[in-house]
Amino acid sequence: MDKVNIQRLADELHLSIATVSRALRDSHQIRPETKEKVWELARKLNYQPNPFASGLREQKSKNIAVVFPELANNFFSLAINGIEEIARQKGYHVLIYLTHESFESETSFVNSLSSGRVDGLLMSLSSETGNYDHILELNKKLPVILFDRVCDSAEMLNVTTNDYESSYAATLHLIEQGCRRIMYLLALKNLSAGKLRLKGYRDALTHAAIPIDENLVIDCDGDEKENSNLLKEAIKTQQPDGLFSSIEKLGILCYHAANELHLSVPQQIKILSFSNLEIAALLNPSLTTITQPAFDIGREAANLLFQRLEKKKAVPESKIIASMLIKRASTATDAV
Amino acid sequence: MDKVNIQRLADELHLSIATVSRALRDSHQIRPETKEKVWELARKLNYQPNPFASGLREQKSKNIAVVFPELANNFFSLAINGIEEIARQKGYHVLIYLTHESFESETSFVNSLSSGRVDGLLMSLSSETGNYDHILELNKKLPVILFDRVCDSAEMLNVTTNDYESSYAATLHLIEQGCRRIMYLLALKNLSAGKLRLKGYRDALTHAAIPIDENLVIDCDGDEKENSNLLKEAIKTQQPDGLFSSIEKLGILCYHAANELHLSVPQQIKILSFSNLEIAALLNPSLTTITQPAFDIGREAANLLFQRLEKKKAVPESKIIASMLIKRASTATDAV
Repeated sequence: MDKVNIQRLADELHLSIATVSRALRDSHQIRPETKEKVWELARKLNYQPNPFASGLREQKSKNIAVVFPELANNFFSLAINGIEEIARQKGYHVLIYLTHESFESETSFVNSLSSGRVDGLLMSLSSETGNYDHILELNKKLPVILFDRVCDSAEMLNVTTNDYESSYAATLHLIEQGCRRIMYLLALKNLSAGKLRLKGYRDALTHAAIPIDENLVIDCDGDEKENSNLLKEAIKTQQPDGLFSSIEKLGILCYHAANELHLSVPQQIKILSFSNLEIAALLNPSLTTITQPAFDIGREAANLLFQRLEKKKAVPESKIIASMLIKRASTATDAV
Repeated sequence: MDKVNIQRLADELHLSIATVSRALRDSHQIRPETKEKVWELARKLNYQPNPFASGLREQKSKNIAVVFPELANNFFSLAINGIEEIARQKGYHVLIYLTHESFESETSFVNSLSSGRVDGLLMSLSSETGNYDHILELNKKLPVILFDRVCDSAEMLNVTTNDYESSYAATLHLIEQGCRRIMYLLALKNLSAGKLRLKGYRDALTHAAIPIDENLVIDCDGDEKENSNLLKEAIKTQQPDGLFSSIEKLGILCYHAANELHLSVPQQIKILSFSNLEIAALLNPSLTTITQPAFDIGREAANLLFQRLEKKKAVPESKIIASMLIKRASTATDAV
């Protein structure tokens, strides 16, 4: 079979190359019936635009990219599913790029997008990211929506959850269950999500008239092994009666630490974690979680992106969707 | 600041545009010192090639794509980490595309890649995929390596694990632990991985002189709710003493089913699953798994891809990397 290029489409339809090219990029200069004919043949012959060909610059790639820190995180896999549901409806492919929490990877990839590989970008920042120039720059060229891990800039559209309130409520729950020495496992400290979660913890303690002990805030910014050792050492010296993990990965470490130190959960130490772990209820004991509306966050972020891509008249606005505290055996007062 | 394009690089270096263009695509016609100078300035000015510009056709995109079925699967997130480790060393970006087990999504995306967005492709087939034309076609244009879920074609390079042997060993383990009615949860039945796992189960039973009961092979090809109902019904009518799940997701369903039917694990029913669940040891009871070398499979697949991209003289060969049976409480003979 001949190669399917614009020339071939033009020949078969008895149209000029310029007309076919304009029809393919949905130009208003071309009549709808003509566009229809061109698109039908293009579909039939499985025509693939050559992104390196000149003259196709204005054509949409029909790709959007999602940039986020890590795969082994149930929040992100659920958010991606929400994003893909919307993209599928719109006929877009979703390309995913992982930063592995590296600011360098993030900027390098974001900069590479300015050349037009994708029509828009959804993004959740790496934990290292403290400078947002690369995002603000790209946002001038194509729509960028941030979700969950966002930057505070009036120029950006963000979809987030109520990190402060849910962290406050979780700390209060631990206090109600009898905890007085609640160890906080700090993560994402450069990001607004991380700052809000820490503030929620501190404020709840203050409002319950429990003095804040800085020795109970453990900065877990090492690798898994380092964090594990840090945590076990801190538990031994500080003797907390509750562990509150600000991210899912550290919540799992709490279980391992309790096992290794032969502390029974929830009798000797209670555990609570931000987590979208699907099997939190199957753990031994089942884990009390702050469950984020990950799927909905992804959906809403994608909706905002397509509103901007389609230049809808309604001005898209940033959104906050509430998380849920799900109480399970790891913070129960009776043995289970 | 002026736009950074080839013209600007040429001007600043007092070279011709053709020379800069050739240097950027690492042509043998250009002296190493000149290439060095061009690349240094390109890096300094953060030059981004325009993929739509003509004349850049031969330039590598420095992107590879990974196409696989789903995100919420620990096998794939580990395999991706292995792939990214190699890609990072080579200075490549990794773009991920999810098929959600849809043959249509898979072919649509694979076809879109023929236009040169990426230099190579790593791929694990959707469970629906029974026809491989789209892959064989693309493989003529750019290197494609399959991993885990592969097609049996002499033209393709595959990285897999020993599905037959590990399934055989797992079934034998259940028999040794006293199981005589082992229910097999069938998945991926169109794919060679799925067929090999089923054959391993059947052969182990036969070699142990246990008659094969077709009522114990449950074809779980519905959604989560359908599979859950099917499984509970099958357990009630067939009264198995062991559940062997051929994929991770169904292994989790086994726990839920046992809980809902008030069957104690492992006393009344034992559970074993193919799984890369990091927290298998934290489940109640801890889960006996066939753990696949997911990270290594990803690494090896990426190594093969770069061998082909770099046109190394050594002929790359398909690889098989062994899985491990990790025995835990869910198949123990004593209560834990």
